[in-house]
Amino acid sequence: MTVTIIGIGLIGGSMALAMREKGFASRIIGVDANKEHLQKALSLGLVDEVMDWEPALDQADLVIIAIPVNAVGEIILPLLNRIQHQVLMDVGSTKQAVCELVRSHPMHKRFVATHPMWGTEYSGPEAAVRGAFANKAVVICNKEESHPGAIEMVENMYRAIGMHLLYMDAMAHDLHAAYVSHISHITSFALANTVLEKEREDQAIFELASGGFESTVRLAKSNPAMWVPIFMQNKENILDVLNEHISQLRKFKSCLEKENYEYLKELIENANKIKRIIK
Amino acid sequence: MTVTIIGIGLIGGSMALAMREKGFASRIIGVDANKEHLQKALSLGLVDEVMDWEPALDQADLVIIAIPVNAVGEIILPLLNRIQHQVLMDVGSTKQAVCELVRSHPMHKRFVATHPMWGTEYSGPEAAVRGAFANKAVVICNKEESHPGAIEMVENMYRAIGMHLLYMDAMAHDLHAAYVSHISHITSFALANTVLEKEREDQAIFELASGGFESTVRLAKSNPAMWVPIFMQNKENILDVLNEHISQLRKFKSCLEKENYEYLKELIENANKIKRIIK
Repeated sequence: MTVTIIGIGLIGGSMALAMREKGFASRIIGVDANKEHLQKALSLGLVDEVMDWEPALDQADLVIIAIPVNAVGEIILPLLNRIQHQVLMDVGSTKQAVCELVRSHPMHKRFVATHPMWGTEYSGPEAAVRGAFANKAVVICNKEESHPGAIEMVENMYRAIGMHLLYMDAMAHDLHAAYVSHISHITSFALANTVLEKEREDQAIFELASGGFESTVRLAKSNPAMWVPIFMQNKENILDVLNEHISQLRKFKSCLEKENYEYLKELIENANKIKRIIK
Repeated sequence: MTVTIIGIGLIGGSMALAMREKGFASRIIGVDANKEHLQKALSLGLVDEVMDWEPALDQADLVIIAIPVNAVGEIILPLLNRIQHQVLMDVGSTKQAVCELVRSHPMHKRFVATHPMWGTEYSGPEAAVRGAFANKAVVICNKEESHPGAIEMVENMYRAIGMHLLYMDAMAHDLHAAYVSHISHITSFALANTVLEKEREDQAIFELASGGFESTVRLAKSNPAMWVPIFMQNKENILDVLNEHISQLRKFKSCLEKENYEYLKELIENANKIKRIIK
């Protein structure tokens, strides 16, 4: 099977590695607006060939769009205008906007909206990771809006790279993604800004940072080109959970101010319940 | 050398493993208010013997207090009342309170205030980790208030287990610890409470949680018995950094509300600067 990957960065590059390793893709074509990334992807062996999107679409069985969610919106209608037998899918962190955008296109049934729940704070083809995605979940959205054959090809690909499949409508996906993924990025960005603002001694941060700090601040290294469009597209859900988060932080603040250590203990014990979910 | 460890949990147990592996301790005595922990520490081979604190002190060369910081305050004066030739040290996350408490005791020069910058979100003797502390920093506070021989023994121990030594006064330590360690725990506890409040479908959290969420929420599993006393003792510094953090989160909120995506990008780019410190 020939797979074209549009956007050969962290996610696209890691999918290329996984699809080749599992024998799902026999030929991988890379498309990217960034010529350096294309050359890097070739030299790293992520892709076999690079070309413009039109011939890359024409020669593919499956086309994977793995670019920031705002850029998906720019390329997806031109792709559908030209598509014939191919299956088109995206891997973006928001799903409502893209599903709404394609819905009125006559070829929209060739498109499958997906979100594999894997990533790191790094970006670009060098960030591609071998063995990513294995044993992680992938969400397939609005399954009923895609052609069953298209769904089947996408399911086969995700199963081949070791993911387990979940199905949601796009609206539910964006809500859950805000709660479980997007808010973590906001808190981590804000934590980094907090520490950089308060702690003027870089050396103190560097020397005192233990695994705990590194863990909570890790996502703050994430790429704005990817995350600003996600926050834009999922604004309402993120504002909702961000308001809740600020109110939860205020509870900690109030406990400290009032020296209400019993309630502080309760807040922490409640937070400990996350153990029942995250081992 | 005989080392007595008071509190044979995550930190005490991991230090026992490291001191034995490096040949620093030939005999390790465990003291703990929790009898089950003592039995567990014996069966795991963390300690050679268990006994009450008085004989354990009498037989030791070095005594390490590795219990919650409020409990340190309860046992440290009785220990100093009985101490003779031994060196006494603690490993707590706050340093001002303990240094102030011991300062007027006639034997206070036998005490060394330290804080090894390592930990995990788990607790108890089963949480002890082999190879912990290696290549991490340890802060030794108010060095000039301790006997040079006591400092030397503590430095030798930390060097033996692979740590590099930093020196600070206790006030500076507590400030930096608030910025770099304590605030991370507050944000993680609050993030867990946020997600548990908003996301009533445990299954959705479980299935959608990717490495990013796990990383930011990991510290939320931490033990309230350890953390409430730390937050109490370092209240002023933590309130200061917590206020800054809430104000940083409000900037993200305002960007989303006003759709000011340029400023949102700037906030994220600023957060990315943490890369210059945390690789």
